[in-house]
Amino acid sequence: MLEYMTAGESHGPQLTAIVNGFPAHVPVTAQGINRDLARRQAGYGRGERMKIEQDAVEILSGVRFGKTMGSPITLVVRNRDYENWSDIMSPEPAEPDRKRVVTHPRPGHADLPGCLLYGHHDARNILERASARETAARVAAGSLCRFFLHEMGAVVFSHVISIHDAAARTEGFTLDELRIRAEESDVRCADSNAAEDMRRRIDEARGRGDTIGGVVEIVATGIPLGLGDVMTSSERLDGRLAGALMNIQAVKGVEIGMGFRAACEWGSRVHDAIHYSTGAEIHTPGRGPSGGFYHATNNAGGIEGGITNGEPLIMRIAVKPIPTMMTPKMSADLVTKEPFEASKERSDVCAVPAAGVVAEAAVCFVLADAFLRRFGGRSLPEIRARYDAAVRDMQNY
Amino acid sequence: MLEYMTAGESHGPQLTAIVNGFPAHVPVTAQGINRDLARRQAGYGRGERMKIEQDAVEILSGVRFGKTMGSPITLVVRNRDYENWSDIMSPEPAEPDRKRVVTHPRPGHADLPGCLLYGHHDARNILERASARETAARVAAGSLCRFFLHEMGAVVFSHVISIHDAAARTEGFTLDELRIRAEESDVRCADSNAAEDMRRRIDEARGRGDTIGGVVEIVATGIPLGLGDVMTSSERLDGRLAGALMNIQAVKGVEIGMGFRAACEWGSRVHDAIHYSTGAEIHTPGRGPSGGFYHATNNAGGIEGGITNGEPLIMRIAVKPIPTMMTPKMSADLVTKEPFEASKERSDVCAVPAAGVVAEAAVCFVLADAFLRRFGGRSLPEIRARYDAAVRDMQNY
Amino acid sequence: MLEYMTAGESHGPQLTAIVNGFPAHVPVTAQGINRDLARRQAGYGRGERMKIEQDAVEILSGVRFGKTMGSPITLVVRNRDYENWSDIMSPEPAEPDRKRVVTHPRPGHADLPGCLLYGHHDARNILERASARETAARVAAGSLCRFFLHEMGAVVFSHVISIHDAAARTEGFTLDELRIRAEESDVRCADSNAAEDMRRRIDEARGRGDTIGGVVEIVATGIPLGLGDVMTSSERLDGRLAGALMNIQAVKGVEIGMGFRAACEWGSRVHDAIHYSTGAEIHTPGRGPSGGFYHATNNAGGIEGGITNGEPLIMRIAVKPIPTMMTPKMSADLVTKEPFEASKERSDVCAVPAAGVVAEAAVCFVLADAFLRRFGGRSLPEIRARYDAAVRDMQNY
Amino acid sequence: MLEYMTAGESHGPQLTAIVNGFPAHVPVTAQGINRDLARRQAGYGRGERMKIEQDAVEILSGVRFGKTMGSPITLVVRNRDYENWSDIMSPEPAEPDRKRVVTHPRPGHADLPGCLLYGHHDARNILERASARETAARVAAGSLCRFFLHEMGAVVFSHVISIHDAAARTEGFTLDELRIRAEESDVRCADSNAAEDMRRRIDEARGRGDTIGGVVEIVATGIPLGLGDVMTSSERLDGRLAGALMNIQAVKGVEIGMGFRAACEWGSRVHDAIHYSTGAEIHTPGRGPSGGFYHATNNAGGIEGGITNGEPLIMRIAVKPIPTMMTPKMSADLVTKEPFEASKERSDVCAVPAAGVVAEAAVCFVLADAFLRRFGGRSLPEIRARYDAAVRDMQNY
Repeated sequence: MLEYMTAGESHGPQLTAIVNGFPAHVPVTAQGINRDLARRQAGYGRGERMKIEQDAVEILSGVRFGKTMGSPITLVVRNRDYENWSDIMSPEPAEPDRKRVVTHPRPGHADLPGCLLYGHHDARNILERASARETAARVAAGSLCRFFLHEMGAVVFSHVISIHDAAARTEGFTLDELRIRAEESDVRCADSNAAEDMRRRIDEARGRGDTIGGVVEIVATGIPLGLGDVMTSSERLDGRLAGALMNIQAVKGVEIGMGFRAACEWGSRVHDAIHYSTGAEIHTPGRGPSGGFYHATNNAGGIEGGITNGEPLIMRIAVKPIPTMMTPKMSADLVTKEPFEASKERSDVCAVPAAGVVAEAAVCFVLADAFLRRFGGRSLPEIRARYDAAVRDMQNY
Repeated sequence: MLEYMTAGESHGPQLTAIVNGFPAHVPVTAQGINRDLARRQAGYGRGERMKIEQDAVEILSGVRFGKTMGSPITLVVRNRDYENWSDIMSPEPAEPDRKRVVTHPRPGHADLPGCLLYGHHDARNILERASARETAARVAAGSLCRFFLHEMGAVVFSHVISIHDAAARTEGFTLDELRIRAEESDVRCADSNAAEDMRRRIDEARGRGDTIGGVVEIVATGIPLGLGDVMTSSERLDGRLAGALMNIQAVKGVEIGMGFRAACEWGSRVHDAIHYSTGAEIHTPGRGPSGGFYHATNNAGGIEGGITNGEPLIMRIAVKPIPTMMTPKMSADLVTKEPFEASKERSDVCAVPAAGVVAEAAVCFVLADAFLRRFGGRSLPEIRARYDAAVRDMQNY
Repeated sequence: MLEYMTAGESHGPQLTAIVNGFPAHVPVTAQGINRDLARRQAGYGRGERMKIEQDAVEILSGVRFGKTMGSPITLVVRNRDYENWSDIMSPEPAEPDRKRVVTHPRPGHADLPGCLLYGHHDARNILERASARETAARVAAGSLCRFFLHEMGAVVFSHVISIHDAAARTEGFTLDELRIRAEESDVRCADSNAAEDMRRRIDEARGRGDTIGGVVEIVATGIPLGLGDVMTSSERLDGRLAGALMNIQAVKGVEIGMGFRAACEWGSRVHDAIHYSTGAEIHTPGRGPSGGFYHATNNAGGIEGGITNGEPLIMRIAVKPIPTMMTPKMSADLVTKEPFEASKERSDVCAVPAAGVVAEAAVCFVLADAFLRRFGGRSLPEIRARYDAAVRDMQNY
Repeated sequence: MLEYMTAGESHGPQLTAIVNGFPAHVPVTAQGINRDLARRQAGYGRGERMKIEQDAVEILSGVRFGKTMGSPITLVVRNRDYENWSDIMSPEPAEPDRKRVVTHPRPGHADLPGCLLYGHHDARNILERASARETAARVAAGSLCRFFLHEMGAVVFSHVISIHDAAARTEGFTLDELRIRAEESDVRCADSNAAEDMRRRIDEARGRGDTIGGVVEIVATGIPLGLGDVMTSSERLDGRLAGALMNIQAVKGVEIGMGFRAACEWGSRVHDAIHYSTGAEIHTPGRGPSGGFYHATNNAGGIEGGITNGEPLIMRIAVKPIPTMMTPKMSADLVTKEPFEASKERSDVCAVPAAGVVAEAAVCFVLADAFLRRFGGRSLPEIRARYDAAVRDMQNY
């Protein structure tokens, strides 16, 4: 139902996203999207470019008088540095400046496979698009979806679980506390002690000329029972979420609920018992409508059989260290095939908090699409009424 | 390019898969598919039903004189037990037998969310399709793709890394050894000592009336550099693999390459240095064509920036314990909403080895599709010639 | 939302269709589908094979106790003649019998382009799938959708407008009369005088060893305002209908509403004036809910801007004469490249009435999908309630 | 393979198209795209707005130094008049100016069904997107595809067959003559006598305050045998073309080859005899590679069984008269439901020549996609080499 495309090079004039199939009458503001763009750029351990950019979205179609019209929505984030790159990135026919051609593929990047796949000998033709800069457009599109999810009572947030070996302890916190505390932390971690360790690790990595990764948890609350499907494997929501998360640069692992821990636990301790109560007490924070049925535990992470079960969605991603490093790494020239030490670039040391914001966007998109698949409709009032009816149907089930 | 649909209830007359877009002239036999169907049914710790079934495929379209025609391929696996279920599963209008209606949703299954989503009060309408029985059709479709991958020089296999806390040590083995040894093991584990522990754990679980899960590694060798894409996030191969793997019943986590371990390692130890050699020595077992560029390590698991890099693909899945258990678990009746202890069913104790075979099928499908997206074409000779040309292009790059 | 695949060769064991995304709780019977299969096989001017076949559907998944479960639905139509063809169509590895290899491509068929595209030198590998026999599976899938449309108050029918130069006069008839009279006619024509001419033309064609085509009108009544979309060109309903209709074998033209006649008429005589009335008088036969707005004329054929406008949908297709003919036509051998006179086969003379039934199926599928896109939902009661709410919303607009 | 999205309101800041999956190394210039944009705006009988606009494309991603990079391509066409509309079309939250709200739905437009579908009471929210202004973005995207088709030796052009009852006689002309003469004509008609009649009809319509439509033929030459597919109905090229053409505003009919004329002709006069010759004489203008097989006639319009057969593609569309008219037409107010005479707007009288340019763009897109499906590949040299190999394979077939 919902579709989007992003376009734009890292040093081109702009990033563009078109979102298609978004319902009408949803209140949307550039400020709201800018908030997410700023969150993506924040974080302890980021390099200097982030400050140059100060991303801001322009809404160039699909929104009128503060509300969506139902038509495709164009979101543009300009690259403020483009004027310095207009020669190198010019669309006009020209011979590339030999000296500025990038023939050194960087380990851990798409440079090498991208160049061979596309027959490029200038890795710039790959890295301009492979760069995490592209995620600004994905964040804008996901942030747009957040406005719709807000109308559905759903909230998507992330918090950093670990950076390198500095791991948060989050047992005592409610989901709300996790969200608020992470938002206040420059490493997006709810546990302030662990956050201190994380910053120390980031400093250490910077001192070593190295980089570090980590684990982020993404949580979605207020998700009703019944998104996704079980009848066809490709319609399962867990696969859609996993695919969208793994498609983020640097993500090498995805878990839902207990994830890998479930692989070494007794079944009797994994599966969540089902209870029923009509009382208000079941409306614990974060749970979505489920007709009185609930689970005392949430090891499933809110999805069973590919369908949401009313409990909060819990996902985790493993983010590998940023590949661009001060520490040299061997590589081979694309043209001469000679070995060289991969270029030492000034760079971020740790992009884990930012990855969490990108992951939120990915999840926002998948969930908005899942809502639209479940409730259909091209206008918010209609969708909202159908949602309310579905909640009533579950209560009367 | 390549598409498939599966259909069929667990106790209905048959499972059906249609595979669309499969190229012509690929040698295919029912025996080859049956081998994978049998592998799915084998494994220490399976229940009795496996013996009843003895799955065998019928190829009912798309193959003539042992080769694909290019037309859609119909694969059917009959449920041998259907005659005993024909009353309960009849398509003919009838009143369901009240006593045989399933109103007890089982924790950890799709029963509850499925029934509320679909408005069913008989969980059989959900469990018949949510059952892992459906994977027989997916295995058949994936096995068909394996014939095509074979023609492309690619091999997909799996081996069990751990069951519960019994973990394999695989450092010393070549990929070929892993494959062969896993195939000989009834827990599909290459490390025979660990296999012994695994069987013991399975026995222990059976004794406790409990179930256990584990971790499986899936490996694809002979994969050329250049499958997948980096220019659009939805075309990335890692996301497609992750989505297909997470869509398998009981899978709660997916990793590629170092996976979650990369999140706590220094970047300098994660990224794989790039080397170049025209010599034969680079053709280490498992590597696919990549034009002389290669990596000394494979922490990326064969994918960088969403594109294969010529190294073997390495994926791992976390399989949760089977939810059906002898150990009772609380649940609530769909009609009365009364609590009950979830039904004690005779069942498998551990489906991890089988999950590996299903995961192979999922990977085979994604890879065959990736080959077809890369090389186009509707007939094997044409695809093969294009592949050879691409290998030459990479060598002359 | 709704998807289907068909598979099966003309002389293989069976045709198979899987329909995915069909909602639960829809009453479905094999008899109803068989009725459409029989309608496809009827018609003055059909050859002998029709009698051999007597198509009957088997519902092998997705339906239980007479109602859909929400799972994929498998429909099988067996080819009763298969036993006579099992050698020629065997899936088992074997050398084809040289004498039975078809190297003579027939003009007007897919034989030649199919063989060159697929690298086949035996045209049987193409014609087995290109044959109109495949439409039996499409009719089965469309007929299934008809059950759903019935629940939505929608009716899809067809009537033959012309066969060769014998043209019906239909001005005086209501839509109901057109439907009923066409159903009673062996050329599916509502005008009994024209039907007489049509039969005469068919006889004449048979006498000449020639074939003839014609024009069929497909009508859908009870379609509410608001199916399809205008915001994205690919979501327009007129394009979907045109694509589905042009995909039918032998169809070379598609019109909606006035169609080509609109190209030579003044705009003031083409566009349908809009009126409003809350009274019952506007509920003329065939019109669907539209909130009191209606049009006195229906030159648009029920679609404006890609969206249904509440008036009956009116489409017409041009069906070319069947290419298989007694009259010889020059062609060239696939292997020797020598010219020959295309094989004289016993064949149908006129398939226009059957094409209408296939076209109904195509329209049923597109419309069922359009309903599901508009109303979402996985179960009929939910969809029906949403539909009723949308009707109320339009009344209160 | 190839995908595009367009976005943008008629009076918003800009129209945007993103084209995804376009191969690398294709030479592309803004001038080339501008030429098609100008052709869309030209034509006798256009209103004044065309002059205001003077469309020009900006290429904002995916092209570097005059060649495509393989990344998504962003094409922007600014609406030069936006500054006068920025209040009415502002994305910022604001109360709409009551006096400027459009509550008068125009007959023949999407206004009425669009407003009821989306729950809008200001038809501007629909008409801004439903407007044919959107086709500027589609023309830009199609024109981009033309660059790729050029590299494949394919040419797509259109010429007007009739406007109202003024019909061209085109029998004597070669395809090249048709193309060149149409390009020189301000009604895009190759027959200069008919063109004179057409202009007269346009003047007459303007005098009457009325509008007129017509028929356009779209031709594609240099198309090799083997685009499209026969094995699955949804992969047929004729359906894709018909769908893309019917999705153009004001198109109410689509024909391929003989089209509706085939419905009243003897089969023996419809089907194109197949011949074979290795000689150069078969390379008549317009025919694409087909391995020596050719047809003396082209009644099929270059497609048999859903696959191109090497002959030129011939399609025709019926364009209805522009609905916006000086002549009043009854309609009903969206809010008061009161009848009114539909607003008299200054407007184009005849958009048939422009519709031809839009249709070319639609066909260019479908054909570029069909080439990519057939030949795969992400870079032009690779695709070109595969194409050459396919031509050789057909010659050696």
